[in-house]
Amino acid sequence: MLIGFDELKTTTKKAFLNLGLDEEQAEICAHVHCSSSADGVESHGINRVIRFADYVGKGWINIKGKPKLLKAKGVSENYDGELGIGVINALFCSERSINLAKEHGLGLVSIKNTTHWMRGGTYAWKIAEAGFIGINWINTESCMPMWGSDVQSVGNNPFCIAIPRENGEVVVDMAMSQYAYGKLGVYRLAGKKLPFPGGFDKEGNLTSNPALIEESRRILPTGYWKGSSLALALDLAAAAISNGLCGSDMDKNNHGSCTGCSQIFIAIDPYLFGTHDEIQGMFNRRIEAVKKAHSIDENHPVKYPGESTLERRKKSMSEGVNVDPTVWEKVCELANKTNKK
Amino acid sequence: MLIGFDELKTTTKKAFLNLGLDEEQAEICAHVHCSSSADGVESHGINRVIRFADYVGKGWINIKGKPKLLKAKGVSENYDGELGIGVINALFCSERSINLAKEHGLGLVSIKNTTHWMRGGTYAWKIAEAGFIGINWINTESCMPMWGSDVQSVGNNPFCIAIPRENGEVVVDMAMSQYAYGKLGVYRLAGKKLPFPGGFDKEGNLTSNPALIEESRRILPTGYWKGSSLALALDLAAAAISNGLCGSDMDKNNHGSCTGCSQIFIAIDPYLFGTHDEIQGMFNRRIEAVKKAHSIDENHPVKYPGESTLERRKKSMSEGVNVDPTVWEKVCELANKTNKK
Repeated sequence: MLIGFDELKTTTKKAFLNLGLDEEQAEICAHVHCSSSADGVESHGINRVIRFADYVGKGWINIKGKPKLLKAKGVSENYDGELGIGVINALFCSERSINLAKEHGLGLVSIKNTTHWMRGGTYAWKIAEAGFIGINWINTESCMPMWGSDVQSVGNNPFCIAIPRENGEVVVDMAMSQYAYGKLGVYRLAGKKLPFPGGFDKEGNLTSNPALIEESRRILPTGYWKGSSLALALDLAAAAISNGLCGSDMDKNNHGSCTGCSQIFIAIDPYLFGTHDEIQGMFNRRIEAVKKAHSIDENHPVKYPGESTLERRKKSMSEGVNVDPTVWEKVCELANKTNKK
Repeated sequence: MLIGFDELKTTTKKAFLNLGLDEEQAEICAHVHCSSSADGVESHGINRVIRFADYVGKGWINIKGKPKLLKAKGVSENYDGELGIGVINALFCSERSINLAKEHGLGLVSIKNTTHWMRGGTYAWKIAEAGFIGINWINTESCMPMWGSDVQSVGNNPFCIAIPRENGEVVVDMAMSQYAYGKLGVYRLAGKKLPFPGGFDKEGNLTSNPALIEESRRILPTGYWKGSSLALALDLAAAAISNGLCGSDMDKNNHGSCTGCSQIFIAIDPYLFGTHDEIQGMFNRRIEAVKKAHSIDENHPVKYPGESTLERRKKSMSEGVNVDPTVWEKVCELANKTNKK
């Protein structure tokens, strides 16, 4: 179903206020969750509001937690997230990386002991929209088998890279599994098969049926062995640079998705060594070349990453945001509860 | 066929000397090419010596070129590679990134106008062996279709990340295609099919036959759309940070693989915010958890990235390095030529 962005955000904000978030927190979280849905990333947008509520209820997310500076050196800063709201912590770190990059040409911010940032692309887009190259990633509890294993043994550790092209940002936001669990849920809710095999069923056969993969928990790493290798390296790097928990430490805590995780935010000035015109000119040449590449389907020209997101955002803003009715019903329930606080 | 490392290196060095490289250059290049073969990456080791010779002959590689500092800011340096020997330029940049990280906790080195670095992992291993987290990547000419296209429109832009674990480095060295062209050649030479589909044949069918993919040039991005998206973003980032050529600029020059490319080297102190014992302890806990994960094949325990490389290196050093006989014949020919210079 389609819901206007303003209505979606107002209702979602009420839901967050009912969880005890203050006005500013609720405003930010509602904006981020609704924007992710508007961008077409429902899995980490509105679909996650109820799980967030559940985690707050269990005490796995501490809504009073705030990023605390532990140490700074040169272009780098390290924070303790105090198990605060992941979205707010991550937005704060993105801003710090941008400010460090404004000063030094490059900024590296690490945060440990934080919680689920929802959609990694939120922060990549933010850094790119501020005019910087953004690189950010997170580690998660084990939710994907290492290649060669049939048990969950590594996180799907999303990795994002964003390019501040003024004629349309180029943004990659990729999970290390071929499909994130959130995406499996979107396909299952829509009654659809995955476009390509996304994991194994309980018997060890590759399958495109999202429900069978959710059941077996044997999600397929993107690029087979490559995805689980990269996921492991990103986990180690995030935990080292933040001096935080690695994926297997989180497994022991067993406090749901990403609770206590480590995140990295890098912002780089694209004009460190070239002029504005040189760099933006190169961005445009490169993207034009991609868009001119011969397409296998004349009705679908080749796109650069981020292009569909911008189109979808525009469409959502004019026609309404697509929301799963079951999900929406639950968010409305939460919004309409008498405030218990 | 198996050849002892010392014999391999001595002969390869002679071949490089015959191309006009000086003593130091020939020593370094022979060591790097032979070490890559010893590590099991034949595609970018000995198999590339003849193509290197070809490029030197065509003037696409300038053996007198040296990295020239163009600009430095804070933790970052930018070099012009003068189309010099890619391996030597890249080793130089790795060292600079390490030295900057020693001073500032993080170092970022970009180089433009350089040539093929052969195996990206060479530099990731180097940074990790020096005790730093390494992240490095390169852009290449278009050699892979963007997702949705049937023509080469993006590079396969390898991305490496390395973790300085003292009990065995964790190193990921991944092309953005499911298999690099070099790897297709290795399988074709060995008369083998690829373990998984690696591209499309001329009719547009997914295939595991390496020769059919070499013919169509429709290599498969790793993770379908993910691989070509990440490749494009890495291209833009490398060209921006180095103020160098992007992939489509290289396409216009049409001077073979990676000639005039841009490369990025990042070194990060793993002890920026944690102690040696905290960080190495975490690395060990994480890797132990991976190695304990249940394997689908009891004869093949789950491995971390880099583990097989270390095993292969040890085996090559004791039993000899595996070299394709056709390739070896050509290297020996080059080594035995009367020095024309």
